[in-house]
Amino acid sequence: MEYDFMVLAPILIAFGISVVLSPVMIPFLKKLKFGQFVRDDGPESHLKKSGTPTMGGLIILCSIVVTSLFYMKTNPVILPVLFVTLGFGLVGFLDDYIKVVMKRSMGLRAWQKMVGQFVITAIFAYYLANYTEVGTSVLIPFTDGKMLDLGFWFYPFLFFAVIGTVNGTNFTDGLDGLLSSITVLTATFFTVVAIGTRSGLEPITCAAVGALLGFLVFNVYPAKVFMGDTGSLALGGLIAATAVMLRMPIYIVIVGFIYFVEVLSVIIQVLYFKKTGKRVFKMAPIHHHFELSGWPETKVVAIFAIITAILCLLGLVAL
Amino acid sequence: MEYDFMVLAPILIAFGISVVLSPVMIPFLKKLKFGQFVRDDGPESHLKKSGTPTMGGLIILCSIVVTSLFYMKTNPVILPVLFVTLGFGLVGFLDDYIKVVMKRSMGLRAWQKMVGQFVITAIFAYYLANYTEVGTSVLIPFTDGKMLDLGFWFYPFLFFAVIGTVNGTNFTDGLDGLLSSITVLTATFFTVVAIGTRSGLEPITCAAVGALLGFLVFNVYPAKVFMGDTGSLALGGLIAATAVMLRMPIYIVIVGFIYFVEVLSVIIQVLYFKKTGKRVFKMAPIHHHFELSGWPETKVVAIFAIITAILCLLGLVAL
Repeated sequence: MEYDFMVLAPILIAFGISVVLSPVMIPFLKKLKFGQFVRDDGPESHLKKSGTPTMGGLIILCSIVVTSLFYMKTNPVILPVLFVTLGFGLVGFLDDYIKVVMKRSMGLRAWQKMVGQFVITAIFAYYLANYTEVGTSVLIPFTDGKMLDLGFWFYPFLFFAVIGTVNGTNFTDGLDGLLSSITVLTATFFTVVAIGTRSGLEPITCAAVGALLGFLVFNVYPAKVFMGDTGSLALGGLIAATAVMLRMPIYIVIVGFIYFVEVLSVIIQVLYFKKTGKRVFKMAPIHHHFELSGWPETKVVAIFAIITAILCLLGLVAL
Repeated sequence: MEYDFMVLAPILIAFGISVVLSPVMIPFLKKLKFGQFVRDDGPESHLKKSGTPTMGGLIILCSIVVTSLFYMKTNPVILPVLFVTLGFGLVGFLDDYIKVVMKRSMGLRAWQKMVGQFVITAIFAYYLANYTEVGTSVLIPFTDGKMLDLGFWFYPFLFFAVIGTVNGTNFTDGLDGLLSSITVLTATFFTVVAIGTRSGLEPITCAAVGALLGFLVFNVYPAKVFMGDTGSLALGGLIAATAVMLRMPIYIVIVGFIYFVEVLSVIIQVLYFKKTGKRVFKMAPIHHHFELSGWPETKVVAIFAIITAILCLLGLVAL
C-alpha cells in the first residue's frame, strides 16, 4: 500500500475504551440521575425516556482524552483541540451536574453558559494567534484551495463559528443516536482532511470517531444512555476547533449542515413566534418537527445521517 | 490538498441517480408485486411488511451501471466487476421475477440458481486468468503486504469466495436497511483500498456507495422498498469481484464478517437441526435470532453496521 493506515489506529483504541467503559459507567450514571426527568420540551412520546441516564458524554470525553494522550508527544498540534473539547465539555458537565445531581431543572443560567463558552473560545483564539501558524485566512469551498484573508474580522468570525457550532451540536442532541452518528461522519470528514493535509490533527479526530462508534452501541435507539450537554458541547468544541485549525470553518456549514439547520430552526421558530404568534415548525429543533410529522425517530436519525454522509463527500470534492 | 478528491465524484452521481429514480420506480414495483407476500420465514412481526414492494435492486443496478458508464473509458478495469455485478443481478432478478410476477413463491429452483452463479463465476475466472494480471496470489491480512500464492487452488478458492459472499449478502438482506448500510461500509472500505493501491477500481465501488446511500433513503426502517435478490446478489457479486481484483478475497471475512456470520448461522442451524433435532439460534439467519431475543429491528441493523465499521477500520490497519 502507498499509505500507512496505522494512522487510523486511534479509532480502534478509542472504540475499545468506549465499549469497555460504557457498561461500567451507565449504572453509575443511572444512580446519579435517579429521579430526574427527560427534558420536557420534546414530543410526548419521549416521556418514556425518563429512565435513561444522561451525562454519557463523560464516557466519550474519557475515551477521547486517554486516546489523545498516546499521541500528545508525536502530534502536539492536537493540544488546542483537546483543550477546546475539554473546556466545552466542562461547561456542559456543570450544566448537566446542576440539572441531574442538584435537581435544578434548568442547569446553568444562560449567561453563565455564555460566559463559559466565551472564555474557552477567547483562550483558543489567543493560543491560535500567538502559538500557531493558522493565521487569519480561511479556505473557500469549491475554489480549488483559494483562501480568504479575514484579517481582524477573523476573530469575531471565530467566535461566531465556534459558539454557533457548539450550540448546533447541543440542539442536534435530541434523538437516540442522532448527534453521535452525525458526528461520527463529520469527524471522519475532518480525519480524511487532516491526513490529506498532513496537519497531524488526525489522532484526535480519529479518537472522536472511535469514541462515538463505541458510545453508539449503547446510544442507538432504544438508547441506554444519553450524552447530555457534557457530550454535545464537547463534540461541538472538537469539531469547531479542528475546522478552525485546518482553516476550514466555512466547511462546517457544509459537513455540519444538520447542526446549522438545527440551530437555525430554533432561531426561526422563536423570532417568527415573537413576531406573529404562529409557529413555522410543528416543534423546534427541527428533528422534532419531522417526528411530529409522523416519521419514526429512527428514520429521522437515518435520513439526517445519510444527508450528512453525502455532504461530507461533497465537502471533500469541494476541496 | 495533496489528494484529488474528485475521484469520489461517482458517489455523488450514483446517489443522485438512486434518489431521483426511487420515487419513480417504487410505485411501478408496487404495481408489479401487488398481492405477493413477504417471505414467510421471518418473525411474525414482519407480516406487516407484506405491502412493501421488492426488486428495488433494479434501482441500485441502474445507478451503478449508469455511473460506471461514465468511467468505462478512463477505468476499463472496472469492466469485470461490472460484469459480475450484472450477472448475479440477473440471476437475482430472474428469481425475484418468478416469485413476484409469476407468483411462484419459491422463485428459481435451487439448482437453477447454483448453475447461474457457477456460470457467472466461471466467466469471471476465465477473464481473470486470461485478460488481467491479478494472478493467483492473495494478500494475507496483518502481514504488512505478504502474499500467498495459491497456484491452481486459487480457482476453487475463487468459486468458494465469490459464491460464499453472494450467499452471505443474500442471507444478510432480511431487515430494513441492513444489507444496504453494511454494504455502504464494505464498499467504502474497498474504495479506500482501490484508491490507495491505484487500482483504478474506485469508480465502481464509489458507484455502489452512492447508489446505496440513495437507496437507503427509502430502504431504512420503515422501508418503502426492498432490494430483493436482484439487489442482494448483485451487491455480493460486486464486493466479491472487487476483493478478488484487489487480491483481497481473504479480507471479505474481516470487512464482510456480517455476511459470513449470516451464512454460517444458516449452515450451523440446518446441520445441527438435522443431527440433533434442536436449534442453535432462535431463528436463522442470525439477525432474526437477535430480533427474537428482544432487540428492535433498528437496533440489530445499527449494531451490525457499527461492527462492520470497526471491522473495516481493522481491515485498513491490517493492510
